Amino acid sequence: MPDHQKFMGQALLLAEKSVRSGGGPFGAVIVKTGAIIGSGTNRVTLDMDPTAHAEMLAIRAACLALGDFQLAGCTIYVNCEPCPMCLAALYWAGIKEIYFAAHRSDAGNIGFADDFIYHEFAKEPKERQIAMHQIMRAEALDILQLWDALEEKIPY
Amino acid sequence: MPDHQKFMGQALLLAEKSVRSGGGPFGAVIVKTGAIIGSGTNRVTLDMDPTAHAEMLAIRAACLALGDFQLAGCTIYVNCEPCPMCLAALYWAGIKEIYFAAHRSDAGNIGFADDFIYHEFAKEPKERQIAMHQIMRAEALDILQLWDALEEKIPY
Repeated sequence: MPDHQKFMGQALLLAEKSVRSGGGPFGAVIVKTGAIIGSGTNRVTLDMDPTAHAEMLAIRAACLALGDFQLAGCTIYVNCEPCPMCLAALYWAGIKEIYFAAHRSDAGNIGFADDFIYHEFAKEPKERQIAMHQIMRAEALDILQLWDALEEKIPY
Repeated sequence: MPDHQKFMGQALLLAEKSVRSGGGPFGAVIVKTGAIIGSGTNRVTLDMDPTAHAEMLAIRAACLALGDFQLAGCTIYVNCEPCPMCLAALYWAGIKEIYFAAHRSDAGNIGFADDFIYHEFAKEPKERQIAMHQIMRAEALDILQLWDALEEKIPY
């Protein structure tokens, strides 16, 4: 069996186990040089944490394993196309490749909001369902400058 | 001082303290019925966790305080426009309103990738910097159906 199918099989197995133990139907594994270095399942309702998607927990586990906030050269296998939260987190983590199985629309068909949130992103902020207001930009710029002036800062 | 400025002042104070203690220049508070129920600062490099943005930690703290995976009726105050990860997380959390101070471009001007990631979202998956591949959709659909058929599932 090709490696990609083997690792996706692991993600699918985690997703199935998650369903059978009260979690959401999603699982993910992160692989570096042929070995799984982190995995996760959707624990939103179990942990009362809306950020606890499979990819997020896998990213956090893999970073903990590497002792790094970057996952350079790593690949994630997840049983469904990442939602915008998870896709952006994978960008922040600097992951190399994403393998997914079901489409966002497949998740939408069983009631998940992934596709809706992607559509919200394509709108102007003032057209979105969540109201966004900007205040006090000048004060905020002072703090960004304070950080930018630090010699010992770690850019990322 | 109007409440919105008071709460944004708290987010700015957290951001400034974060810069002075080795964290990223971002802070957030989440407010429900006039009281702060959760807060967070950017701890990406401190915790070696690329998901540890101020908003994400504030969401998790507020959900823990409420014992809920939803933040209905809550408002977040953050010193910079949320990145796509945090904006999507705020959607998943069902937050009502977002107050932000600096623009994503202000963060971009001191080296942060927020604006780049927003632009990646606007592209077709095959045009993006992170390669995305789809495999084994049929097997994944079986698991989504398994979840959908559960009577005791918690939709969200």
